[in-house]
Amino acid sequence: MSNHNPWKTVSSKIVYQNPWIRVREDAVVKPDGSNGIYGVMESRDSVVAVVLNKKNEVYLIHSFNYPVSTWSWGLPGGGGDNENPEVASKRELAEETGITANQWTFLGTTRVSSGLMTEKMSVYLAQDVSFGKRIEADDRDLIDGGRFISFEEIDRMIERGEIDDAQTITGLYLTLRWLNKSK
Amino acid sequence: MSNHNPWKTVSSKIVYQNPWIRVREDAVVKPDGSNGIYGVMESRDSVVAVVLNKKNEVYLIHSFNYPVSTWSWGLPGGGGDNENPEVASKRELAEETGITANQWTFLGTTRVSSGLMTEKMSVYLAQDVSFGKRIEADDRDLIDGGRFISFEEIDRMIERGEIDDAQTITGLYLTLRWLNKSK
Repeated sequence: MSNHNPWKTVSSKIVYQNPWIRVREDAVVKPDGSNGIYGVMESRDSVVAVVLNKKNEVYLIHSFNYPVSTWSWGLPGGGGDNENPEVASKRELAEETGITANQWTFLGTTRVSSGLMTEKMSVYLAQDVSFGKRIEADDRDLIDGGRFISFEEIDRMIERGEIDDAQTITGLYLTLRWLNKSK
Repeated sequence: MSNHNPWKTVSSKIVYQNPWIRVREDAVVKPDGSNGIYGVMESRDSVVAVVLNKKNEVYLIHSFNYPVSTWSWGLPGGGGDNENPEVASKRELAEETGITANQWTFLGTTRVSSGLMTEKMSVYLAQDVSFGKRIEADDRDLIDGGRFISFEEIDRMIERGEIDDAQTITGLYLTLRWLNKSK
């Protein structure tokens, strides 16, 4: 198996940026030796929090996604503010749900879109939770509900397209893997 | 639960494009009534193909990811060329592995990054497969190996960070769900 970088980056320029994302276009020499470009979107590394109760149900929120103009059910989370991912998970969870947890477990870090983005997403399990008042800090989040849902119902919601967010489904895979290991 | 769009898009402009991605910046009225912007990356809808053998092992490939400069194991797939997603799955699988399959099953469509992208990824199961010669059509793909891997080993590879691609993990979740339903 290879471990060297088969591409060569000749130069790199920022072609767009706003407070949340930055897009760079690299001039590259491709693995086949020809010249080309590669556009990459950079965004803050993100987190999702999997709140699990004693019945192994997961707390999902119903929120609006601007890019595709749809409402869907998914894990609480969001872009970190360049802070430690566990700190970001606690903050995002409190902001989006009002939940605080006594027990946090790191489940893994994944890449959101390997071919187009640099964003890494960390998944944290939150257990032994209390419900408090939600602090709406981010005016881009729009959430109108949340509840604990069993994996059986989650699978029916995926079937019906009510859960279709890959970041959520990735977090659920890591949770099932953790539950199987803990048996 | 709400079903209306709480945002208002006032205007929209393309701020960057190349043959693979397009970035647009919308001027918006946010849910709280204030003015703002929203940057969205548009890319071709993508596919992944889950090749499953009779032992329920999944065929993963080892490929290089330019945005984060790492090699990793993942499902074959890529951006469709605006074709039907099943056609795209067959083409991507043949291009990346040389595999053709007699039986194809649609497992679901997910969104890759709900907050930043419009990209939808469809997942197809491929069974009853034959190995032929790989057709390397896309000079951005760099693949140096592939093999069938059990879910037990997949979970160890996730643990070691050898599999960390959320699009792959999402495809694996939908496959496990299908296997549980088929029992």
